[in-house]
Amino acid sequence: MEEELKRLIRNIPDFPKQGVQFKDITPLLQNGPAFKRAIDAMAAHYSSSGANVIVSIEARGFIIGAALAYSMGKSFVPLRKPGKLPFTSVRAELEKEYGKDAIEMHIDALKAGDKVLIIDDVLATGGTLNAAIKLVETAGASVEGIGVLTELSFLHGRANIKGKQGDYKIFSLLKY
Amino acid sequence: MEEELKRLIRNIPDFPKQGVQFKDITPLLQNGPAFKRAIDAMAAHYSSSGANVIVSIEARGFIIGAALAYSMGKSFVPLRKPGKLPFTSVRAELEKEYGKDAIEMHIDALKAGDKVLIIDDVLATGGTLNAAIKLVETAGASVEGIGVLTELSFLHGRANIKGKQGDYKIFSLLKY
Repeated sequence: MEEELKRLIRNIPDFPKQGVQFKDITPLLQNGPAFKRAIDAMAAHYSSSGANVIVSIEARGFIIGAALAYSMGKSFVPLRKPGKLPFTSVRAELEKEYGKDAIEMHIDALKAGDKVLIIDDVLATGGTLNAAIKLVETAGASVEGIGVLTELSFLHGRANIKGKQGDYKIFSLLKY
Repeated sequence: MEEELKRLIRNIPDFPKQGVQFKDITPLLQNGPAFKRAIDAMAAHYSSSGANVIVSIEARGFIIGAALAYSMGKSFVPLRKPGKLPFTSVRAELEKEYGKDAIEMHIDALKAGDKVLIIDDVLATGGTLNAAIKLVETAGASVEGIGVLTELSFLHGRANIKGKQGDYKIFSLLKY
Protein backbone atom coordinates (compact mmCIF):
# COMPACT_ATOMS: atom_id res chain seq x y z
CA MET A 1 0.00 0.00 0.00
CA GLU A 2 2.85 2.34 0.83
CA GLU A 3 4.14 2.48 -2.78
CA GLU A 4 0.62 3.02 -4.12
CA LEU A 5 0.04 5.98 -1.80
CA LYS A 6 3.51 7.37 -2.51
CA ARG A 7 2.61 7.61 -6.19
CA LEU A 8 0.04 10.21 -5.11
CA ILE A 9 2.62 12.41 -3.35
CA ARG A 10 4.00 15.13 -5.63
CA ASN A 11 7.52 16.56 -5.47
CA ILE A 12 7.62 20.36 -5.63
CA PRO A 13 11.16 21.67 -6.16
CA ASP A 14 12.27 24.85 -4.33
CA PHE A 15 9.19 25.21 -2.08
CA PRO A 16 8.89 26.97 0.29
CA LYS A 17 12.47 28.02 -0.40
CA GLN A 18 15.32 27.36 -2.84
CA GLY A 19 16.84 23.89 -2.52
CA VAL A 20 13.95 22.30 -0.59
CA GLN A 21 11.98 19.45 -2.21
CA PHE A 22 8.45 19.79 -0.83
CA LYS A 23 6.27 16.67 -0.58
CA ASP A 24 2.82 17.79 -1.72
CA ILE A 25 0.13 15.51 -0.26
CA THR A 26 -2.81 17.20 -2.03
CA PRO A 27 -3.00 14.63 -4.88
CA LEU A 28 -3.41 11.91 -2.22
CA LEU A 29 -6.11 13.93 -0.41
CA GLN A 30 -7.88 14.48 -3.75
CA ASN A 31 -8.14 10.71 -4.20
CA GLY A 32 -11.05 9.71 -1.94
CA PRO A 33 -10.22 5.99 -1.63
CA ALA A 34 -6.49 6.71 -1.09
CA PHE A 35 -7.23 9.31 1.61
CA LYS A 36 -9.51 6.81 3.33
CA ARG A 37 -6.91 4.05 3.05
CA ALA A 38 -4.22 6.25 4.58
CA ILE A 39 -6.39 7.25 7.56
CA ASP A 40 -7.58 3.65 8.06
CA ALA A 41 -3.95 2.45 8.12
CA MET A 42 -3.09 5.01 10.81
CA ALA A 43 -6.22 4.08 12.80
CA ALA A 44 -5.29 0.39 12.57
CA HIS A 45 -1.79 1.16 13.85
CA TYR A 46 -3.27 2.91 16.89
CA SER A 47 -6.22 0.54 17.47
CA SER A 48 -4.80 -0.72 20.79
CA SER A 49 -2.99 2.46 21.87
CA GLY A 50 -5.29 3.47 24.75
CA ALA A 51 -5.10 7.12 23.70
CA ASN A 52 -8.23 9.21 24.26
CA VAL A 53 -7.22 12.45 22.52
CA ILE A 54 -5.80 13.40 19.12
CA VAL A 55 -3.79 16.64 19.12
CA SER A 56 -3.00 18.15 15.71
CA ILE A 57 -1.15 21.14 14.37
CA GLU A 58 -2.49 23.87 12.04
CA ALA A 59 -3.18 23.64 9.14
CA ARG A 60 -2.36 20.46 7.16
CA GLY A 61 -2.14 18.50 10.41
CA PHE A 62 -5.85 19.21 10.96
CA ILE A 63 -6.69 17.28 7.77
CA ILE A 64 -5.00 14.10 8.98
CA GLY A 65 -5.75 14.50 12.70
CA ALA A 66 -9.45 15.37 12.40
CA ALA A 67 -10.15 12.47 10.03
CA LEU A 68 -8.28 10.13 12.39
CA ALA A 69 -10.09 11.47 15.49
CA TYR A 70 -13.43 10.99 13.73
CA SER A 71 -12.47 7.50 12.59
CA MET A 72 -11.37 6.45 16.09
CA GLY A 73 -14.11 8.33 17.99
CA LYS A 74 -11.47 10.31 19.93
CA SER A 75 -11.39 13.91 21.14
CA PHE A 76 -9.75 16.41 18.80
CA VAL A 77 -7.56 19.27 20.07
CA PRO A 78 -6.23 21.87 17.59
CA LEU A 79 -2.85 23.54 18.12
CA ARG A 80 -2.73 26.88 16.30
CA LYS A 81 -0.49 29.76 15.28
CA PRO A 82 -0.28 32.58 17.87
CA GLY A 83 -3.44 34.67 18.26
CA LYS A 84 -5.72 32.29 16.40
CA LEU A 85 -7.30 30.47 19.35
CA PRO A 86 -10.13 32.45 20.95
CA PHE A 87 -9.83 31.28 24.60
CA THR A 88 -6.93 31.60 27.09
CA SER A 89 -3.99 29.72 25.61
CA VAL A 90 -0.50 28.48 26.44
CA ARG A 91 2.34 28.91 23.96
CA ALA A 92 5.42 26.93 22.93
CA GLU A 93 8.18 28.47 20.81
CA LEU A 94 9.67 26.34 18.07
CA GLU A 95 12.54 26.21 15.61
CA LYS A 96 11.42 25.27 12.13
CA GLU A 97 13.28 24.27 9.02
CA TYR A 98 12.35 27.69 7.63
CA GLY A 99 12.74 29.91 10.74
CA LYS A 100 11.28 30.65 14.19
CA ASP A 101 7.60 30.25 15.03
CA ALA A 102 5.25 29.30 17.87
CA ILE A 103 2.10 27.29 18.45
CA GLU A 104 -0.63 27.66 21.06
CA MET A 105 -3.12 25.40 22.82
CA HIS A 106 -6.25 26.28 24.81
CA ILE A 107 -5.46 26.11 28.51
CA ASP A 108 -8.42 23.76 29.11
CA ALA A 109 -7.83 21.57 26.04
CA LEU A 110 -6.26 18.69 27.98
CA LYS A 111 -6.72 17.25 31.47
CA ALA A 112 -3.98 15.72 33.62
CA GLY A 113 -3.92 12.02 32.76
CA ASP A 114 -5.13 12.41 29.18
CA LYS A 115 -3.38 10.01 26.82
CA VAL A 116 -2.52 11.81 23.62
CA LEU A 117 -1.61 10.97 20.05
CA ILE A 118 0.13 13.91 18.38
CA ILE A 119 -0.76 13.73 14.69
CA ASP A 120 0.70 15.86 11.90
CA ASP A 121 1.09 15.66 8.13
CA VAL A 122 4.89 15.47 8.14
CA LEU A 123 7.92 14.79 10.32
CA ALA A 124 10.67 17.05 8.96
CA THR A 125 13.23 18.43 11.45
CA GLY A 126 10.91 17.72 14.41
CA GLY A 127 10.66 21.32 15.66
CA THR A 128 6.88 21.56 15.45
CA LEU A 129 6.37 18.16 17.04
CA ASN A 130 8.68 19.05 19.95
CA ALA A 131 6.63 22.18 20.62
CA ALA A 132 3.47 20.04 20.56
CA ILE A 133 5.05 17.56 23.03
CA LYS A 134 5.86 20.47 25.35
CA LEU A 135 2.27 21.76 25.30
CA VAL A 136 0.85 18.28 25.95
CA GLU A 137 3.25 17.49 28.81
CA THR A 138 2.89 20.93 30.43
CA ALA A 139 -0.84 20.17 30.70
CA GLY A 140 -0.02 16.99 32.67
CA ALA A 141 -1.06 14.69 29.83
CA SER A 142 1.12 11.93 28.39
CA VAL A 143 2.19 11.36 24.79
CA GLU A 144 1.11 7.84 23.80
CA GLY A 145 2.47 8.26 20.29
CA ILE A 146 3.45 10.61 17.51
CA GLY A 147 2.02 9.83 14.08
CA VAL A 148 2.60 11.44 10.70
CA LEU A 149 1.52 10.75 7.14
CA THR A 150 5.00 11.35 5.72
CA GLU A 151 8.48 11.30 7.25
CA LEU A 152 11.45 13.00 5.61
CA SER A 153 13.98 10.55 7.06
CA PHE A 154 16.91 12.34 5.36
CA LEU A 155 16.36 15.30 7.75
CA HIS A 156 16.86 12.97 10.76
CA GLY A 157 13.97 14.63 12.64
CA ARG A 158 13.27 11.40 14.53
CA ALA A 159 16.57 11.81 16.40
CA ASN A 160 15.57 15.36 17.45
CA ILE A 161 12.24 14.41 19.06
CA LYS A 162 12.53 15.08 22.78
CA GLY A 163 10.49 15.91 25.87
CA LYS A 164 9.99 14.95 29.54
CA GLN A 165 9.12 11.33 28.75
CA GLY A 166 12.47 10.90 27.04
CA ASP A 167 11.35 8.18 24.68
CA TYR A 168 8.52 8.42 22.16
CA LYS A 169 6.84 5.97 19.82
CA ILE A 170 6.94 7.56 16.37
CA PHE A 171 4.89 6.13 13.50
CA SER A 172 5.09 7.35 9.91
CA LEU A 173 2.95 5.87 7.16
CA LEU A 174 5.13 6.97 4.22
CA LYS A 175 8.91 7.24 4.59
CA TYR A 176 11.29 9.21 2.36
CA MET B 1 -29.27 16.72 19.09
CA GLU B 2 -28.86 20.36 18.09
CA GLU B 3 -29.33 21.68 21.65
CA GLU B 4 -26.97 19.06 23.07
CA LEU B 5 -24.22 20.04 20.62
CA LYS B 6 -24.88 23.74 21.17
CA ARG B 7 -24.10 23.30 24.87
CA LEU B 8 -20.56 22.46 23.71
CA ILE B 9 -20.12 25.72 21.78
CA ARG B 10 -18.52 28.44 23.90
CA ASN B 11 -19.20 32.19 23.57
CA ILE B 12 -16.03 34.30 23.54
CA PRO B 13 -16.81 38.02 23.92
CA ASP B 14 -14.78 40.56 21.91
CA PHE B 15 -12.88 38.05 19.73
CA PRO B 16 -11.27 38.59 17.28
CA LYS B 17 -12.29 42.22 17.83
CA GLN B 18 -14.31 44.39 20.22
CA GLY B 19 -18.05 43.82 20.02
CA VAL B 20 -17.90 40.44 18.26
CA GLN B 21 -19.22 37.33 20.05
CA PHE B 22 -17.08 34.46 18.77
CA LYS B 23 -18.57 30.95 18.73
CA ASP B 24 -15.74 28.68 19.89
CA ILE B 25 -16.26 25.13 18.61
CA THR B 26 -13.22 23.63 20.38
CA PRO B 27 -15.21 22.23 23.37
CA LEU B 28 -17.36 20.31 20.84
CA LEU B 29 -14.25 19.02 19.01
CA GLN B 30 -12.74 17.98 22.37
CA ASN B 31 -15.76 15.77 23.01
CA GLY B 32 -15.13 12.67 20.84
CA PRO B 33 -18.71 11.37 20.71
CA ALA B 34 -20.10 14.88 20.04
CA PHE B 35 -17.60 15.51 17.24
CA LYS B 36 -18.53 12.16 15.70
CA ARG B 37 -22.26 12.90 16.05
CA ALA B 38 -21.87 16.28 14.34
CA ILE B 39 -19.95 14.84 11.37
CA ASP B 40 -22.37 11.89 11.08
CA ALA B 41 -25.31 14.29 10.99
CA MET B 42 -23.69 16.27 8.16
CA ALA B 43 -22.84 13.03 6.29
CA ALA B 44 -26.46 11.86 6.69
CA HIS B 45 -27.71 15.16 5.28
CA TYR B 46 -25.54 14.70 2.18
CA SER B 47 -25.97 10.91 1.81
CA SER B 48 -27.86 11.28 -1.48
CA SER B 49 -26.18 14.45 -2.76
CA GLY B 50 -24.18 12.91 -5.62
CA ALA B 51 -21.17 15.06 -4.76
CA ASN B 52 -17.75 13.51 -5.34
CA VAL B 53 -15.51 16.19 -3.79
CA ILE B 54 -15.38 18.06 -0.47
CA VAL B 55 -13.73 21.49 -0.69
CA SER B 56 -12.79 23.13 2.63
CA ILE B 57 -11.21 26.36 3.78
CA GLU B 58 -8.13 26.77 6.02
CA ALA B 59 -7.86 26.21 8.91
CA ARG B 60 -10.94 25.32 11.03
CA GLY B 61 -12.80 24.31 7.87
CA PHE B 62 -10.23 21.51 7.40
CA ILE B 63 -11.33 19.93 10.69
CA ILE B 64 -14.95 19.61 9.60
CA GLY B 65 -14.31 18.99 5.89
CA ALA B 66 -11.58 16.36 6.24
CA ALA B 67 -13.59 14.33 8.76
CA LEU B 68 -16.63 14.55 6.47
CA ALA B 69 -14.62 13.58 3.36
CA TYR B 70 -13.18 10.58 5.22
CA SER B 71 -16.62 9.59 6.51
CA MET B 72 -18.19 9.79 3.03
CA GLY B 73 -15.19 8.40 1.10
CA LYS B 74 -14.97 11.59 -0.98
CA SER B 75 -12.00 13.52 -2.36
CA PHE B 76 -10.72 16.36 -0.19
CA VAL B 77 -9.51 19.66 -1.65
CA PRO B 78 -7.97 22.29 0.66
CA LEU B 79 -8.38 26.03 -0.03
CA ARG B 80 -5.56 27.99 1.62
CA LYS B 81 -4.30 31.45 2.44
CA PRO B 82 -2.11 33.03 -0.29
CA GLY B 83 1.35 31.46 -0.69
CA LYS B 84 0.60 28.33 1.35
CA LEU B 85 -0.17 25.90 -1.48
CA PRO B 86 2.97 24.49 -3.11
CA PHE B 87 1.71 23.96 -6.70
CA THR B 88 0.37 26.45 -9.28
CA SER B 89 -2.76 28.00 -7.78
CA VAL B 90 -5.69 30.24 -8.63
CA ARG B 91 -6.78 32.98 -6.25
CA ALA B 92 -10.08 34.58 -5.21
CA GLU B 93 -10.19 37.83 -3.24
CA LEU B 94 -12.71 38.10 -0.44
CA GLU B 95 -14.30 40.55 1.95
CA LYS B 96 -14.39 39.27 5.50
CA GLU B 97 -16.15 40.45 8.61
CA TYR B 98 -12.73 41.55 9.87
CA GLY B 99 -11.10 42.90 6.66
CA LYS B 100 -9.82 41.92 3.19
CA ASP B 101 -8.22 38.57 2.46
CA ALA B 102 -7.84 35.95 -0.28
CA ILE B 103 -7.87 32.18 -0.68
CA GLU B 104 -6.17 29.95 -3.23
CA MET B 105 -6.79 26.56 -4.80
CA HIS B 106 -4.42 24.30 -6.76
CA ILE B 107 -5.08 24.70 -10.48
CA ASP B 108 -5.50 20.90 -10.88
CA ALA B 109 -7.58 20.37 -7.72
CA LEU B 110 -10.90 20.06 -9.55
CA LYS B 111 -11.96 18.73 -12.96
CA ALA B 112 -14.77 20.14 -15.11
CA GLY B 113 -17.91 18.26 -14.08
CA ASP B 114 -16.85 17.62 -10.49
CA LYS B 115 -19.73 17.92 -8.05
CA VAL B 116 -18.59 19.77 -4.98
CA LEU B 117 -19.69 20.25 -1.40
CA ILE B 118 -18.11 23.38 0.08
CA ILE B 119 -17.68 22.70 3.80
CA ASP B 120 -16.61 25.20 6.45
CA ASP B 121 -16.88 25.62 10.19
CA VAL B 122 -19.06 28.72 10.10
CA LEU B 123 -21.32 30.81 7.87
CA ALA B 124 -20.84 34.41 9.06
CA THR B 125 -21.13 37.18 6.45
CA GLY B 126 -20.56 34.71 3.59
CA GLY B 127 -17.42 36.35 2.16
CA THR B 128 -15.18 33.31 2.46
CA LEU B 129 -17.82 30.97 1.07
CA ASN B 130 -18.38 33.27 -1.94
CA ALA B 131 -14.66 33.16 -2.72
CA ALA B 132 -14.78 29.36 -2.48
CA ILE B 133 -17.77 29.26 -4.86
CA LYS B 134 -15.83 31.39 -7.34
CA LEU B 135 -12.81 29.05 -7.26
CA VAL B 136 -14.99 25.95 -7.69
CA GLU B 137 -17.02 27.43 -10.57
CA THR B 138 -13.97 28.88 -12.35
CA ALA B 139 -12.62 25.31 -12.50
CA GLY B 140 -15.79 24.20 -14.34
CA ALA B 141 -17.10 22.24 -11.36
CA SER B 142 -20.56 22.68 -9.83
CA VAL B 143 -21.53 23.46 -6.25
CA GLU B 144 -23.89 20.71 -5.06
CA GLY B 145 -24.17 22.24 -1.62
CA ILE B 146 -22.65 24.46 1.03
CA GLY B 147 -22.45 23.01 4.52
CA VAL B 148 -21.31 24.52 7.80
CA LEU B 149 -21.22 23.40 11.41
CA THR B 150 -22.54 26.73 12.72
CA GLU B 151 -24.49 29.56 11.10
CA LEU B 152 -24.58 33.07 12.58
CA SER B 153 -28.05 33.83 11.19
CA PHE B 154 -28.07 37.32 12.72
CA LEU B 155 -25.34 38.33 10.21
CA HIS B 156 -27.65 37.37 7.30
CA GLY B 157 -24.74 35.73 5.41
CA ARG B 158 -27.15 33.33 3.71
CA ALA B 159 -28.62 36.24 1.73
CA ASN B 160 -25.13 37.24 0.53
CA ILE B 161 -24.18 33.84 -0.94
CA LYS B 162 -23.88 34.26 -4.70
CA GLY B 163 -22.16 32.81 -7.77
CA LYS B 164 -22.80 31.72 -11.37
CA GLN B 165 -25.37 29.09 -10.39
CA GLY B 166 -27.47 31.77 -8.75
CA ASP B 167 -29.12 29.48 -6.24
CA TYR B 168 -27.32 27.35 -3.64
CA LYS B 169 -28.45 24.74 -1.15
CA ILE B 170 -27.06 25.84 2.22
CA PHE B 171 -27.08 23.49 5.20
CA SER B 172 -26.06 24.47 8.72
CA LEU B 173 -26.10 21.99 11.59
CA LEU B 174 -26.26 24.57 14.42
CA LYS B 175 -28.07 27.89 13.94
CA TYR B 176 -27.63 31.06 16.02
